[in-house]
Amino acid sequence: MAITPEDLTPEVFAPFGDVIDVQSAKEDRVINEGNTVRYHDLANLSLTEAAGTPLINIFRSTPLPLPITLKSMECHPLSSQAFYPLSENPYLVAVAPAGEFHESEIRVFIANCRQGVNYHPGTWHHYSLALNSVSDFLVIDRGGPEENCDEVDLSQPLVVDLLR
Amino acid sequence: MAITPEDLTPEVFAPFGDVIDVQSAKEDRVINEGNTVRYHDLANLSLTEAAGTPLINIFRSTPLPLPITLKSMECHPLSSQAFYPLSENPYLVAVAPAGEFHESEIRVFIANCRQGVNYHPGTWHHYSLALNSVSDFLVIDRGGPEENCDEVDLSQPLVVDLLR
Repeated sequence: MAITPEDLTPEVFAPFGDVIDVQSAKEDRVINEGNTVRYHDLANLSLTEAAGTPLINIFRSTPLPLPITLKSMECHPLSSQAFYPLSENPYLVAVAPAGEFHESEIRVFIANCRQGVNYHPGTWHHYSLALNSVSDFLVIDRGGPEENCDEVDLSQPLVVDLLR
Repeated sequence: MAITPEDLTPEVFAPFGDVIDVQSAKEDRVINEGNTVRYHDLANLSLTEAAGTPLINIFRSTPLPLPITLKSMECHPLSSQAFYPLSENPYLVAVAPAGEFHESEIRVFIANCRQGVNYHPGTWHHYSLALNSVSDFLVIDRGGPEENCDEVDLSQPLVVDLLR
């Protein structure tokens, strides 16, 4: 099985989460005596449920060997998880709707280096899929004592066709 | 009055907040089937006090005219505020200890493009001080109904001497 990545836009990604970029800001404010534009509140965060607390982390991800092949997916039922790229590389975002997992509903997007993503609670997603070279991401997620990661294996590998 | 910036390290910055970088991680975990290193929990966040909720924003900051001159400082008594650079530029971080403000206690640090900072609640700081060219920062701070910004004017301008 193979899947072709789609371009990432806030509209197509809305069922899964938020695209974090200045173009998607619903509100921007000029602050700091005119020297800064604040693109305000770019993601719908869910980080404080039950005993949860927000965390800032850096993920350093090595690209999978080509062709990139998806074999499993995961989700965090209790919290959102946001990734913002710190490299100049694009990256892949593979998701499926929250709830009962259906392989046929997997979608793959290609994000550019000025687009972050925020997975809403329960959204199925593949782990960090760097492209080109080792890439860092700033990750805003949740710490807490509860189990907060479900995983599923795909019934067959899904190859991402990057030759579009 | 003039002040010379110091190099930013977690040790010298500890009275004011956290330096967010992979070198400062107290814990790193290999995850994602060996394809990612998670540099875990890099900042001591305080974003959920009272009615507070965490926010992700992008700040787009224009450098002040040279010589960079500090005329005021601000603090957020209820919450931390984290900045992570999204450009290749260094930037300045001007701070003073939380509590009663004393101009003589201002310190200025120069951060490189792989160092974020997280101001702890109440730490006096200057607003975003980009260098070289317009620079974006990912900012993790707090939204809430309460007033959460105090400001002070300096009794005399403080020039940052970048010619070291």
